[in-house]
Amino acid sequence: MLSSKKKYIVNGNSGIKAQQIQFADQKQEFNKRPTKIGRRSLSRSISQSSTDSYSSAASYTDSSDDETSPRDKQQKNSKGNSDFCVKNIKQAEFGRREIEIAEQEMPALMALRKRAQGEKPLAGAKIVGCTHITAQTAVLMETLGALGAQCRWAACNIYSTLNEVAAALAESGFPVFAWKGESEDDFWWCIDRCVNVEGWQPNMILDDGGDLTHWIYKKYPNMFKKIKGIVEESVTGVHRLYQLSKAGKLCVPAMNVNDSVTKQKFDNLYCCRESILDGLKRTTDMMFGGKQVVVCGYGEVGKGCCAALKAMGSIVYVTEIDPICALQACMDGFRLVKLNEVIRQVDIVITCTGNKNVVTREHLDRMKNSCIVCNMGHSNTEIDVASLRTPELTWERVRSQVDHVIWPDGKRIVLLAEGRLLNLSCSTVPTFVLSITATTQALALIELYNAPEGRYKQDVYLLPKKMDEYVASLHLPTFDAHLTELTDEQAKYLGLNKNGPFKPNYYRY
Amino acid sequence: MLSSKKKYIVNGNSGIKAQQIQFADQKQEFNKRPTKIGRRSLSRSISQSSTDSYSSAASYTDSSDDETSPRDKQQKNSKGNSDFCVKNIKQAEFGRREIEIAEQEMPALMALRKRAQGEKPLAGAKIVGCTHITAQTAVLMETLGALGAQCRWAACNIYSTLNEVAAALAESGFPVFAWKGESEDDFWWCIDRCVNVEGWQPNMILDDGGDLTHWIYKKYPNMFKKIKGIVEESVTGVHRLYQLSKAGKLCVPAMNVNDSVTKQKFDNLYCCRESILDGLKRTTDMMFGGKQVVVCGYGEVGKGCCAALKAMGSIVYVTEIDPICALQACMDGFRLVKLNEVIRQVDIVITCTGNKNVVTREHLDRMKNSCIVCNMGHSNTEIDVASLRTPELTWERVRSQVDHVIWPDGKRIVLLAEGRLLNLSCSTVPTFVLSITATTQALALIELYNAPEGRYKQDVYLLPKKMDEYVASLHLPTFDAHLTELTDEQAKYLGLNKNGPFKPNYYRY
Amino acid sequence: MLSSKKKYIVNGNSGIKAQQIQFADQKQEFNKRPTKIGRRSLSRSISQSSTDSYSSAASYTDSSDDETSPRDKQQKNSKGNSDFCVKNIKQAEFGRREIEIAEQEMPALMALRKRAQGEKPLAGAKIVGCTHITAQTAVLMETLGALGAQCRWAACNIYSTLNEVAAALAESGFPVFAWKGESEDDFWWCIDRCVNVEGWQPNMILDDGGDLTHWIYKKYPNMFKKIKGIVEESVTGVHRLYQLSKAGKLCVPAMNVNDSVTKQKFDNLYCCRESILDGLKRTTDMMFGGKQVVVCGYGEVGKGCCAALKAMGSIVYVTEIDPICALQACMDGFRLVKLNEVIRQVDIVITCTGNKNVVTREHLDRMKNSCIVCNMGHSNTEIDVASLRTPELTWERVRSQVDHVIWPDGKRIVLLAEGRLLNLSCSTVPTFVLSITATTQALALIELYNAPEGRYKQDVYLLPKKMDEYVASLHLPTFDAHLTELTDEQAKYLGLNKNGPFKPNYYRY
Amino acid sequence: MLSSKKKYIVNGNSGIKAQQIQFADQKQEFNKRPTKIGRRSLSRSISQSSTDSYSSAASYTDSSDDETSPRDKQQKNSKGNSDFCVKNIKQAEFGRREIEIAEQEMPALMALRKRAQGEKPLAGAKIVGCTHITAQTAVLMETLGALGAQCRWAACNIYSTLNEVAAALAESGFPVFAWKGESEDDFWWCIDRCVNVEGWQPNMILDDGGDLTHWIYKKYPNMFKKIKGIVEESVTGVHRLYQLSKAGKLCVPAMNVNDSVTKQKFDNLYCCRESILDGLKRTTDMMFGGKQVVVCGYGEVGKGCCAALKAMGSIVYVTEIDPICALQACMDGFRLVKLNEVIRQVDIVITCTGNKNVVTREHLDRMKNSCIVCNMGHSNTEIDVASLRTPELTWERVRSQVDHVIWPDGKRIVLLAEGRLLNLSCSTVPTFVLSITATTQALALIELYNAPEGRYKQDVYLLPKKMDEYVASLHLPTFDAHLTELTDEQAKYLGLNKNGPFKPNYYRY
Repeated sequence: MLSSKKKYIVNGNSGIKAQQIQFADQKQEFNKRPTKIGRRSLSRSISQSSTDSYSSAASYTDSSDDETSPRDKQQKNSKGNSDFCVKNIKQAEFGRREIEIAEQEMPALMALRKRAQGEKPLAGAKIVGCTHITAQTAVLMETLGALGAQCRWAACNIYSTLNEVAAALAESGFPVFAWKGESEDDFWWCIDRCVNVEGWQPNMILDDGGDLTHWIYKKYPNMFKKIKGIVEESVTGVHRLYQLSKAGKLCVPAMNVNDSVTKQKFDNLYCCRESILDGLKRTTDMMFGGKQVVVCGYGEVGKGCCAALKAMGSIVYVTEIDPICALQACMDGFRLVKLNEVIRQVDIVITCTGNKNVVTREHLDRMKNSCIVCNMGHSNTEIDVASLRTPELTWERVRSQVDHVIWPDGKRIVLLAEGRLLNLSCSTVPTFVLSITATTQALALIELYNAPEGRYKQDVYLLPKKMDEYVASLHLPTFDAHLTELTDEQAKYLGLNKNGPFKPNYYRY
Repeated sequence: MLSSKKKYIVNGNSGIKAQQIQFADQKQEFNKRPTKIGRRSLSRSISQSSTDSYSSAASYTDSSDDETSPRDKQQKNSKGNSDFCVKNIKQAEFGRREIEIAEQEMPALMALRKRAQGEKPLAGAKIVGCTHITAQTAVLMETLGALGAQCRWAACNIYSTLNEVAAALAESGFPVFAWKGESEDDFWWCIDRCVNVEGWQPNMILDDGGDLTHWIYKKYPNMFKKIKGIVEESVTGVHRLYQLSKAGKLCVPAMNVNDSVTKQKFDNLYCCRESILDGLKRTTDMMFGGKQVVVCGYGEVGKGCCAALKAMGSIVYVTEIDPICALQACMDGFRLVKLNEVIRQVDIVITCTGNKNVVTREHLDRMKNSCIVCNMGHSNTEIDVASLRTPELTWERVRSQVDHVIWPDGKRIVLLAEGRLLNLSCSTVPTFVLSITATTQALALIELYNAPEGRYKQDVYLLPKKMDEYVASLHLPTFDAHLTELTDEQAKYLGLNKNGPFKPNYYRY
Repeated sequence: MLSSKKKYIVNGNSGIKAQQIQFADQKQEFNKRPTKIGRRSLSRSISQSSTDSYSSAASYTDSSDDETSPRDKQQKNSKGNSDFCVKNIKQAEFGRREIEIAEQEMPALMALRKRAQGEKPLAGAKIVGCTHITAQTAVLMETLGALGAQCRWAACNIYSTLNEVAAALAESGFPVFAWKGESEDDFWWCIDRCVNVEGWQPNMILDDGGDLTHWIYKKYPNMFKKIKGIVEESVTGVHRLYQLSKAGKLCVPAMNVNDSVTKQKFDNLYCCRESILDGLKRTTDMMFGGKQVVVCGYGEVGKGCCAALKAMGSIVYVTEIDPICALQACMDGFRLVKLNEVIRQVDIVITCTGNKNVVTREHLDRMKNSCIVCNMGHSNTEIDVASLRTPELTWERVRSQVDHVIWPDGKRIVLLAEGRLLNLSCSTVPTFVLSITATTQALALIELYNAPEGRYKQDVYLLPKKMDEYVASLHLPTFDAHLTELTDEQAKYLGLNKNGPFKPNYYRY
Repeated sequence: MLSSKKKYIVNGNSGIKAQQIQFADQKQEFNKRPTKIGRRSLSRSISQSSTDSYSSAASYTDSSDDETSPRDKQQKNSKGNSDFCVKNIKQAEFGRREIEIAEQEMPALMALRKRAQGEKPLAGAKIVGCTHITAQTAVLMETLGALGAQCRWAACNIYSTLNEVAAALAESGFPVFAWKGESEDDFWWCIDRCVNVEGWQPNMILDDGGDLTHWIYKKYPNMFKKIKGIVEESVTGVHRLYQLSKAGKLCVPAMNVNDSVTKQKFDNLYCCRESILDGLKRTTDMMFGGKQVVVCGYGEVGKGCCAALKAMGSIVYVTEIDPICALQACMDGFRLVKLNEVIRQVDIVITCTGNKNVVTREHLDRMKNSCIVCNMGHSNTEIDVASLRTPELTWERVRSQVDHVIWPDGKRIVLLAEGRLLNLSCSTVPTFVLSITATTQALALIELYNAPEGRYKQDVYLLPKKMDEYVASLHLPTFDAHLTELTDEQAKYLGLNKNGPFKPNYYRY
């Protein structure tokens, strides 16, 4: 097991956005689990996800006064259908508008719908899904529907559901079971309502975190006989699948869509290049020009942060443990230091390592007054925030997501999001990034559903490179970008198919 | 064979510096080769390499008046040793100074020497080498010597030998057989003198292009019984090795050092980021600011060219065939176009695709007056230069490496290096980049020589990631860069060894 | 008059942040003004300023339920003093904390206080001020106090007062007359309470917009006999002063601090480089990478916007009327176009010209769906927003400061801040920028107050370059920046005083 | 005199390219000069200029074997004309081609020729010129001819003449008196041949350095009666003119074209941004990535150097004496240090201050091995090169323009161009930059020649801003740049003329 763990854990080092990473010590196993530990880790799983919920996941309309549990309500959509459970079906109109706005920024899914007018590549597919329920997910679900699939859906996070969007989906006839603020019991109840249906049995699973998969394994193992495959997006869920596979218990093919090139580059490099600036501005209104910043970790996330801050006139130092990434930092124009060398002089400390205790109490003690400390990397382990919860230090909440931690001598450290992910807590994820993920998921479902017998075995697969390239190509029109086509002669010369794939699997981009 | 070819060829696509790439149609096979074709392709191999010789490979001192063939001379070094063949042993002093200067910029090799003062990891190694003979190679050879090895050396290119350096090596006792301007017959004679020696038999091969390996296969196949391994640097040579392996004829382990991360990044991205500017300036003295440029291909080379020109104030367009690289170009701020869309308006056209006929006569006909056309990518296939050698066009050589091709209506196209590689023809390769390559070679030799029985079989291997990281770490002191070390606790948390490797093999950097 | 107007107006062209610019057609004259028009333009002046109030100028604590006018309340501070009029003296503690936080980012003023511990350069000064009342202004006021001055203060804007800060100032004994949400009548009443006092007569004026100066001219002209000078910060106020001067009616020296180098560079280039990103993100959550943007105007503001967006991976086009700025745009790597050439293809339109109707209805009609339109330049004249208020177009407010304007065919334009200044409406001004302004004001007061008789006549002066340099030098410690000092020999060689000024007045920086 | 000197000298501070600066201690005065000193300073003037001659000023064709002085030769052009004196009239054809190539990159002058087909704004003008004689100057001269002027020309530098170009001009009928390698006596003889002609008297002077003006003042003072004006390009010459003016001895209007915006920005910021990279590469083949560099001076030249090196991945430190420039460096992302703080760690030291002894022997003693030292700022005063000419240090010339200075302990400093200007010695000036200068000169001649009586008095003038804008507008087509025109309504709103000028004189760009 150690080698398999290592295989994925190192992936997260040097800056993979680690909100999706769950490490060995926090991890439940699906089988052989004693009830108590099972419960504990399960609930921990939920609460961990919930702390990382998107900041944009606030409810649009004010319905907080309604205290009745959705499970106790009788609701019907305008067509008289009641196979759903949402907060308030009346919010459907508002949610529909949000979905329509999202559609405009998800051209790839809309293109898939268009191409599917003739053929229905998912005709006959019965997809059960468990993801964040947002306007972008709704566009995905309605695309799957347009491609011929039937869907039933639950939320993968007890806080992240947008009630209006869930209502809009229910109104259009999707059996959706989700609301913002579910209890743990609600959480599993919703999932169960998706799979445990009279006269309907899923043949595809779309999961984000592995809870849905886990539930079916635990409660309805026989269902897997009809299931053609699992598509999993998160590092956590992918890790669980590899464990199942290693233990010989994975009984259907699974697709790991987390490690596709486009997803990785957009989730990490390109998205963080923007969100580091956004997160810092929204919380502190600081000026970047001339500020001294140390960025811990020069993986994709660190590269994005460094590039952005350098461009805005900050002076950026980098720390690294990996000499190759370190050499890249040098060639890109950053002084490579140990944290101790610069900790007294910097104005901002940013962690992007996927590691733990990168910023220790000792470092915090040595920082100068007004130093800003934040985390772009891993759940909430990178900064040793716990070490700050001692009697001699005073905490002062100055804004949402901004605490001043005050030393006895009056020195203040500005801690953002209590050490949780700045990019999720204090910034937003652009729809365009979510579009890439959603398109990847849709294509993975189509691939698994239509693959000829025998192409995929009971194992975990990466998305075929050709599909990765296809996802990219579907997003090029957004930029009015015009791809060049190989001539026959050129394709022959290069030994390539004109339609790709264009690179070997190990190509680094 | 097709799949194996594809495997390597695609590697070259989108900008791998293709001087090292030799494609199927130009390639000799080692076996089953009919004599005539064998001779032809052999000589073509030589001449192709020679056209790509480094521009810096000019002889420092003027000894061109000496017309006697070195093979006909009787030369002894100051200790009376005559086991070498160079142009003029008297040039040794000048060459020694060049070597000393190079030593200062190759700190990693010097560090290896220092660490070897206690142990001699290559004690007993008998290395026969065939590479470019330059000051940097000399530092490598003398490092191998310091590590305990005995070496014999020939040149891998008939033009690239620096006679003074060869003389300096001969003077210090290295059996070197090489001079600038060898004939084809000389070329093979020199190689033969390295391996065909009384009382000395090599047990390691260091090759660049595969000619030495080929010669031993052909002439002294029994020698392989004692040979522990081959280290090969070039794409061409690596390709030959994979073919041998595929045909089941590789009889010793071989190390492909061409595809290590550091080598790739430095040879392509970082080096080209600088050499594109240098090559254009030295040839045309043009101003970059405000110029419209189209860069064909957004692989590592294209990324380097685009970044540099954008930084200098050029307006850069990109063409690509691969949608993933295309999307990267978009996110990096470049308009993705087809060449035809911008060909009338651009001031500069740069090819970095590894493809052929990317710039056709039709494109050239449509370019505006004074448009500069050059190639950073592949031998001389990317621009269809042959199509310009027609009677209606006039060629005017205005400087070394600069031709004006003049249309009947007076329009001039400025063609650089006749479509050969700008970075090699009109720029220089920094010693630091060569240092990374040389260190990688030295470590690969040490690894193969010391590997326990059975670690490596009769196959082609990539440098272990840990060694790649070690090469990087040896170059960090150049930048006064300070690496952070994992604590025990952190290493355990990440599931990593504190000394690396720090990333899985598929990590993209 | 035309030439004098031109002198100032052109200053604002090509991107001076025009919130401070008031043009001829909107401008009241102090003299010869018929009562009615006078009133109208006066009230317009107020309302114009109020629409441009800082977004950060929201009250921190919720006291909106208190409907009693401060003028009707009896309030005393803890020392029994009642010479002030603020919303609620009990908010003083909260305001004090805000002031303390601001102090930490205004090191230059704190340095001035420290240096003043020995000498009191403003001892005897009686300053009446009329500015925005924010934490930063409070730091300025308390600095003036520490330098020896007595101050009385009113707000220059009916909306921008932070009630808590005003309370804190009143609590420490400053006679402050200001609250958020004054009526026009309140506005003048507050100003009057500052100047019309028994036994206290001002000898210095610090004004922002010219309303205070105007009031004294109109009501208490005799007061000018004792006044040593006026310091004015805004373009509007400066323009009024030049008019007075031209008409021969300026009866004291005045200092134009608007045009100092540091203020200009920070208010425009450096501040906008950051606020364009911030303003767009906060309103639209868009991704910058790959977006096509047209920036109208390449003055300091345009330069800042272009640099930031280019760095974030946008493709930026520029429009200009001035060929010199246009050539700079070219050399900086931007395609110079007419708006019509790119209006159909861009994703974002940003105006920074200081001009009017730069974006017309015709342009808006041709924009593509989802195009974002915003203004960084001048009040609200640059985009012809009025032309969008026609029956066939639907406006939809989707967020604060974000409207969708919907065409009959469904096309949506995303209009930010209704065409008002994005940087003020949807972003914040960093304290560091305000620090530079406040320090400049303090030094101007010191200079005017201490200048020997005859140095300044009844005219408008620019801050002496030496003082501009001094402001800069006071801000260097923030960046831990170490200035080099000329040796005697070098100073002699350059013909410079070692303490500056270091450049001639026309130097362009 | 001190204040006048200061006025110009400070202009050069912080990085004005100081090849054009001549300081008080090196300066001859035109009047009251005792013969001997006059001669001495005159010859010093020549030799100083000669050391700064363009590196590109090498003769194209090899005619160095011809030792006969041109003054002793009888030469006629193909039309039988012999009113010229050049090295070899037979080289005309080669020179003509160079001129034709230059024409293609000087579109502004070609545009002036075209516009002049109808009117001849210089009809009747008799221009005597004294400048570098290069292909670019030839384009200027032939443009002046096309505009109606008669010209006679000498070289302003004894080394910089391109013999082939001079021959081409002579062949087309221009009376040119210049060759590469003139003696001092030749120098003045050539100038005299231009002005001392039977039946021809100049009415305009175009000077570069002031020697021609000086000669006429000294020898033919009466000539000034007919002279309508002087156009002077160099800092030296401009300084001489201001001195004359101050002394009341300037008897005609003079135009200072050195301080126009476009010239300054191109000669300094934009040109140096490219030439720093070019100069370093051509001399040292170094890699920029990861190198630590200190740039002394953050004026236009320093800004250009810093921007380029940062973009190439160097880590850049800045030193400054002026707090305003220092603050700009901070905001642009550079650590502001004193030289001593970083001198031990940097790989490259670049001076751009216009000051003297910025790099002292003490600094040089502390630099690390292989540190590169070069000057982009002022003649040869910035680095105290003299201090290195001591017995304990060994100088080794390793390449043209590259010396190794070796300390007793073996440490080597790499000194470029012996401390003279790197950009002139080791790089080239792009034709485009020279085009801007030449166009400015042409327009200044037209302005002075056509100005109505009384517009210009016996004083030194800056080019009217409108002309500066016109120069810029003539260069926009090179970039296919499209300027926007103000509407009548907008022009009125801004109080501007639609044709400019668009900015007040103090605008900083």
